[in-house]
Amino acid sequence: MKKFVYTFGGGKAEGSTTMREALGGKGADLAEMSSLGVSVPAGFTISTEVCVQYQDNDGKYPDGLEDQVEKGLHYVEKVMGAKFGDPKNPLLLSVRSGARVSMPGMMDTVLNLGLSPQTIEGLIKKTGNKRFVYDSYRRFIQMYSNVVMGADGEHFEKIIDEMKEKKGIKLDVDLTAEDLGELANLFKAKVKEDLGKDFPDDPKEQLWGGIAAVFRSWNSKRAIDYRRIYSIPNHWGTAVNVQAMVFGNMGEDCATGVAFTRDPSTGERRFFGEFLINAQGEDVVAGIRTPQPINIAGKRDPGMQSMEEAMPAIYKELELIYKKLENHYRDMQDIEFTIQQGKLWMLQTRRGKRTAKAAVKIAVEMVSEGLITKEEAIARIEPASLDQLLHPMIDPKAPREVVAKGLPASPGAAVGRVVFTAEDAEMWDERGEKVILVRLETSPDDIKGMHVSQGILTARGGLTSHAAVVARGMGKCCVSGCGDVRINMEAKQFSVGPVTIREGDWITLNGSTGEVMTGKLPTVLPELTGEFGTIMGWVDSVRTLKVRTNADTPVDAEVARKFGAEGIGLCRTEHMFFEGERIDAVREMILASDLDGRKKALYKILPMQKGDFKGIFRVMNGYPVTVRLLDPPLHEFLPHTDAEIQDLSKKIGVPAETLKSKARDLHEFNPMLGHRGCRLGITFPEIYAMQVQAIMEAACDLKREEDITSIPEIEIPLVGHPNELKQLRAVCDKVCHDVIKKTGIEIKYTIGTMIELPRAAITADEIAKYADFFSFGTNDLTQTTFGFSRDDAGKFLVEYVNKHLLSADPFVTIDRNGVGELMRIGVERGRRTKPNLEIGICGEHGGEAQSVMFCHEIGLNYVSCSPYRVPIARLAAAQAVLEHKSATKG
Amino acid sequence: MKKFVYTFGGGKAEGSTTMREALGGKGADLAEMSSLGVSVPAGFTISTEVCVQYQDNDGKYPDGLEDQVEKGLHYVEKVMGAKFGDPKNPLLLSVRSGARVSMPGMMDTVLNLGLSPQTIEGLIKKTGNKRFVYDSYRRFIQMYSNVVMGADGEHFEKIIDEMKEKKGIKLDVDLTAEDLGELANLFKAKVKEDLGKDFPDDPKEQLWGGIAAVFRSWNSKRAIDYRRIYSIPNHWGTAVNVQAMVFGNMGEDCATGVAFTRDPSTGERRFFGEFLINAQGEDVVAGIRTPQPINIAGKRDPGMQSMEEAMPAIYKELELIYKKLENHYRDMQDIEFTIQQGKLWMLQTRRGKRTAKAAVKIAVEMVSEGLITKEEAIARIEPASLDQLLHPMIDPKAPREVVAKGLPASPGAAVGRVVFTAEDAEMWDERGEKVILVRLETSPDDIKGMHVSQGILTARGGLTSHAAVVARGMGKCCVSGCGDVRINMEAKQFSVGPVTIREGDWITLNGSTGEVMTGKLPTVLPELTGEFGTIMGWVDSVRTLKVRTNADTPVDAEVARKFGAEGIGLCRTEHMFFEGERIDAVREMILASDLDGRKKALYKILPMQKGDFKGIFRVMNGYPVTVRLLDPPLHEFLPHTDAEIQDLSKKIGVPAETLKSKARDLHEFNPMLGHRGCRLGITFPEIYAMQVQAIMEAACDLKREEDITSIPEIEIPLVGHPNELKQLRAVCDKVCHDVIKKTGIEIKYTIGTMIELPRAAITADEIAKYADFFSFGTNDLTQTTFGFSRDDAGKFLVEYVNKHLLSADPFVTIDRNGVGELMRIGVERGRRTKPNLEIGICGEHGGEAQSVMFCHEIGLNYVSCSPYRVPIARLAAAQAVLEHKSATKG
Repeated sequence: MKKFVYTFGGGKAEGSTTMREALGGKGADLAEMSSLGVSVPAGFTISTEVCVQYQDNDGKYPDGLEDQVEKGLHYVEKVMGAKFGDPKNPLLLSVRSGARVSMPGMMDTVLNLGLSPQTIEGLIKKTGNKRFVYDSYRRFIQMYSNVVMGADGEHFEKIIDEMKEKKGIKLDVDLTAEDLGELANLFKAKVKEDLGKDFPDDPKEQLWGGIAAVFRSWNSKRAIDYRRIYSIPNHWGTAVNVQAMVFGNMGEDCATGVAFTRDPSTGERRFFGEFLINAQGEDVVAGIRTPQPINIAGKRDPGMQSMEEAMPAIYKELELIYKKLENHYRDMQDIEFTIQQGKLWMLQTRRGKRTAKAAVKIAVEMVSEGLITKEEAIARIEPASLDQLLHPMIDPKAPREVVAKGLPASPGAAVGRVVFTAEDAEMWDERGEKVILVRLETSPDDIKGMHVSQGILTARGGLTSHAAVVARGMGKCCVSGCGDVRINMEAKQFSVGPVTIREGDWITLNGSTGEVMTGKLPTVLPELTGEFGTIMGWVDSVRTLKVRTNADTPVDAEVARKFGAEGIGLCRTEHMFFEGERIDAVREMILASDLDGRKKALYKILPMQKGDFKGIFRVMNGYPVTVRLLDPPLHEFLPHTDAEIQDLSKKIGVPAETLKSKARDLHEFNPMLGHRGCRLGITFPEIYAMQVQAIMEAACDLKREEDITSIPEIEIPLVGHPNELKQLRAVCDKVCHDVIKKTGIEIKYTIGTMIELPRAAITADEIAKYADFFSFGTNDLTQTTFGFSRDDAGKFLVEYVNKHLLSADPFVTIDRNGVGELMRIGVERGRRTKPNLEIGICGEHGGEAQSVMFCHEIGLNYVSCSPYRVPIARLAAAQAVLEHKSATKG
Repeated sequence: MKKFVYTFGGGKAEGSTTMREALGGKGADLAEMSSLGVSVPAGFTISTEVCVQYQDNDGKYPDGLEDQVEKGLHYVEKVMGAKFGDPKNPLLLSVRSGARVSMPGMMDTVLNLGLSPQTIEGLIKKTGNKRFVYDSYRRFIQMYSNVVMGADGEHFEKIIDEMKEKKGIKLDVDLTAEDLGELANLFKAKVKEDLGKDFPDDPKEQLWGGIAAVFRSWNSKRAIDYRRIYSIPNHWGTAVNVQAMVFGNMGEDCATGVAFTRDPSTGERRFFGEFLINAQGEDVVAGIRTPQPINIAGKRDPGMQSMEEAMPAIYKELELIYKKLENHYRDMQDIEFTIQQGKLWMLQTRRGKRTAKAAVKIAVEMVSEGLITKEEAIARIEPASLDQLLHPMIDPKAPREVVAKGLPASPGAAVGRVVFTAEDAEMWDERGEKVILVRLETSPDDIKGMHVSQGILTARGGLTSHAAVVARGMGKCCVSGCGDVRINMEAKQFSVGPVTIREGDWITLNGSTGEVMTGKLPTVLPELTGEFGTIMGWVDSVRTLKVRTNADTPVDAEVARKFGAEGIGLCRTEHMFFEGERIDAVREMILASDLDGRKKALYKILPMQKGDFKGIFRVMNGYPVTVRLLDPPLHEFLPHTDAEIQDLSKKIGVPAETLKSKARDLHEFNPMLGHRGCRLGITFPEIYAMQVQAIMEAACDLKREEDITSIPEIEIPLVGHPNELKQLRAVCDKVCHDVIKKTGIEIKYTIGTMIELPRAAITADEIAKYADFFSFGTNDLTQTTFGFSRDDAGKFLVEYVNKHLLSADPFVTIDRNGVGELMRIGVERGRRTKPNLEIGICGEHGGEAQSVMFCHEIGLNYVSCSPYRVPIARLAAAQAVLEHKSATKG
């Protein structure tokens, strides 16, 4: 006979914490506590398998279950010294769900099973508290008839209101034991009236009703929805925990509380919690009465009475237990307990949720306490959570009015006054105003405006839209794709539902949640504690994958160096074409009708671009800097609106019609797949030649003038065919040799390519012949492999993820089977030609933990990500090593 | 000592026709003829290797060459019975280039080497023709000093003019022998004056000068340019042929001629050629004198005198020779000959160029003559040339004025009056006018206008642009991407350079060459001769690859059936959404705010779409029809211009602002990578459900009403992830089952997918789980694999091909290493899951010979192409089998 029922209590248990699959999280931990000798109300867990069979067989239980439940019940009765349904010494039971992972509030619970006219008297005698018993009874009828029998809960509320009116009282607590007894009878009559059947007085019937209700609730709409959102498989099922009731509300020698074994906000090593005398668990949470601190250290004012003071002996006992649990689980615990008539019962223990700051502190301290190893400490920090530590955040205590929600595109908080154009942003900034730039979407034209803004809000675009990518690069808060926002550019205002926000109004963005709030919320800057440094040190000693940063400016590079970047993996150069007067020279180049004209314009840009590179190389002294040559299509550099065209026409003395005609010539249906990347270099090699000259001259100057070592890695973007790289490599090599020859300074440079097209991955063996390095551009590689435009896919990608067509947004986490497989092929073929080929990744994925782990797996040399993600990548890289180690060990 | 020099003549030769690599085409065939006993002026060939060494070693010849040339010269002297430089019996030589493949006119030639004051008298005595000798001498000085010594040819013309003026004569022929002798002296003085050195009189010096000049001319600018255009490797080098001179212009017993062993235009088996008495080869070509027919059969009027009549004995000899050559080479030959004083000399034989019609006729007849096998006949037809046979063509005799040249997007000829909008095309067509639609580019909105036009001319778009693809599908002439055409929509006119063409003006398009001509040129319809049917029968018995067609209408399907299509491999359904009133229902669906609204609109389209399918299934009775469910993004169905929006707004009573807002919502930055294909099906499964219902009901109706067997293959486009197909397959299967159940008619249907995204190829094993068939959509697969938008890539792809970055346009010929490799992976992984998975291709490549052969190679079951390409695909499929056979044999 298959075992379906596992008992616990009385210092032993049939289950354990390792059996979460069968017993669910709650059941497994109750069993574990019991085995540890912690006093837990006895009970038994019906395994998840029963749930599965129950669903599969139209509500039939597997054979033998009844017997096993009966035996379990006997065990509970024996341990608790009471009998279920016994008029003299009745045992009351709770029936609770318990899935493998917590699904808070999604499934049903029934308490106080076993109460009936037959057992009430015995219970009154046993507790000496008539009112408590009748109150429990009427609550039981309410809960059971609603949850199990399907009665409408509001009817009972109405009956209570009528009773209170009749009695002329306002509060439930003013109802007497007799009133409550009468209520119970009225409730039962109402059940009979509404449902046409009697409320069951038979405890066994009550028990099986409760069990069935919990199993059924696994397939309630809200549970299914919840599982869809959190990707929990339907076939897991829930366990059912049947457990003896204990009461914290029987009198002044009773209490109930919750506690954390360390501070979940700060990570401080102090026992931290709250409790209430003569109360039930829900009272602590509900906030009707103010919970008291669990110990003297937790008292916020002298008027409070801590449990340490009120119940010193039990507090001591609780201290011993929490320490035992923390030592046993070797992690910070979140515990629940009840004191019934002076006896302490533990109801739950689980891994305590904590802030990133607390997680780091706890992990580091537990290592020094000898509780866990450094490796375990590393493994316990959720890489993505580090974001919290690196960006200013909204004061968690501040009240707020959320008016809209977009995508959490770039974390942190931003508070500022609304402006609608990049120019306005700059203007307001010059006046010393803090602004938030609100745009339909951003374009490279907006860069300067974004730079001076506190944060960016866009109505369109996904997590990898221009706004999102640039904002993350800048470490700036951004909420993107906020579809509810309707922008009226002419009126300089936007509306969200009924709310209208005008230029100059204050708003606050939370880039970590995507929330948009009206007004000016206070923010706090999290400190990077010493523990952060400690754990990052361990991380660095473990990881093998290098971490670089994507940085286009000395400022970004400096931030990234502070966060531990070991080089620049992607320095985009297009931004260098937009700043200040350069854009004029760039436009002059685009409009030039011949090579000479283009060269003339380019050589205006050369000294400025050279200055940019010097700034970056200086910061990265001794570290490699991968510089990507010009990538975007030329039409991005031309003005778009008629007004902008008129302006430019006046400025450079070229007829507006010529400008428009050029723009039309350059217009593309699918710019993503158009004349950009190395295709520009093939058509206009002079552009790349100028850029390489700027790079090499910058490096030579720095060596000579400041003895600074530059390690330029010249990167040709969007190569799809080996011949493209072959040809452009020759162009670049020539310029490099010329500069070296002219200056007499030997700069070690390399030339390589992005692998960002499927064809590049497929023909990597051929491409590697001409490449000193590869860098996976997984943004574009994802676009072309899926055939998804990241600017457009937002519309359906959300649906794809929600409908589980995709397990994750492939622009956020590398799609292992598709894009990842192409990466594998690219690595394998590239190294077939050059076994020591340096290979990195510079797409947005380089800062996402799962993706970083994949990069480790396929043998990349480094990942590169925006400065604020460098610590995340370092941690993920270390975790990859540990995971790989445990996988090969296992 | 390495052999560099190969002699021929006197009935033997050291080389042969198989040695083209070393001897070049000309040298190899001269050797072959000589070995065959055909009288060829003796000579020797200096191998291509000498050319390579000469270039590599700065103009130094390899050791031993001088000796070998000396020996070769002795051989020639012996055979020809004359001596080079001998004053009494001088031998004259020609020095000609001869590369592996013909590069007509690209390299240098020197004739009459050996003439000098010392040899002139001997030659006069030998020929008895003083004037001829002096004329030859002055010509030699002109040619040699220009080609070898670098003198300016114009100076000599000036001297001749002065002489004629002095003598008071007009024509060269009036110059006497003495005049010519004086000219020779004047020329030599001019050379001395201009170049500061004497014209060489030493024959040996002349010979080596000539050889070096030919080798040098391999690297002349025009030769290099030519090789770049025709992809001829620079390292091949040219051979040099040194050969005894023979003269057709020594008197009335001399002549020269060219001939084809069969008619190169029609393929008729008749000896066909022209000759001139007392003339040099260039006179036949130059057109100063009218060449006479070679035989009586070739006389166009009785006044002509054929060689058969004028020189009956030599004609008989020539007949024997041409038959010998054709039998030997087993192919139609293009020959050149000279008769010197009654002796026939053969100067060249080579494979004769021919029209497609001739190629087919010759191949078939040579099989019946027992000259070649059927397999050889098949292998000899160039598949692409069949296009000529299948489309009307411009009368080759008609004079024409070409004003612009675009891309040869869809072959054939079109003559019509210019219109600029699809609406105008329809209007004019209703009036019975023949029109040519001229557009910047076409869109699906233009389909009807395209249908009624004779041809389409677009200013933008490549060989796979919308216009090109649709036109080929319709078998309609199209010239696309004609960049010189400047359209002025408002004025309804276009200009090309100085020429302006207005609405209503007649123009003629040649879709096979891309030429645009003013006026109304006459066209001819080529007949499909009996031989065409014969050879296609052989083709079908050889090939294993099936050939289907891409057809969206019964008319197209019928044409394709006539051309031998064995099913429809791609029936696009989007056109069915545009026709007539359907577009209104489609727009209603797009504008509907909920599912019910969409369904209501869809069910207006259902009966019409069902009718479409009945029409197609009826034509394809018993053959499979792959129907692709809706693919394009919805915004393609909305009006674009303000005027169209206003019209629609009035028509359907929806505010224009709502229409605009919807269009804005649907706007995409990269529509190619946007919300289209199966992504539409995921978002709006009701669209696919409607289409499948139409398909299945059509099939059931036909079975019941007409006993017609439909084999529908339902195709889901743009699948990138197995879950997409899984989900949509379920939607389709349900509809199919419902229809079958309702009608009680068992229709065998299958459900499969396009493989047109890199991710689909990479995960083909997973996708195959849910697919009954695959069809490679290589248009889109090429776009995503390369990251090229075919609508935009035209701008740089031409450059890519010209610069040899790519060996061919990947939208025309499958890119084997990239796209092809993904196809291989797709086939291999798909069949790993389902070994018998049916796999086809339906991209444009399905009708291109090289691509068809590749599809055979990787084991596809069928190719599918536009109706007019079906015969091409059939032929290529057969050639693939033969090539594979010979490859495995070899």
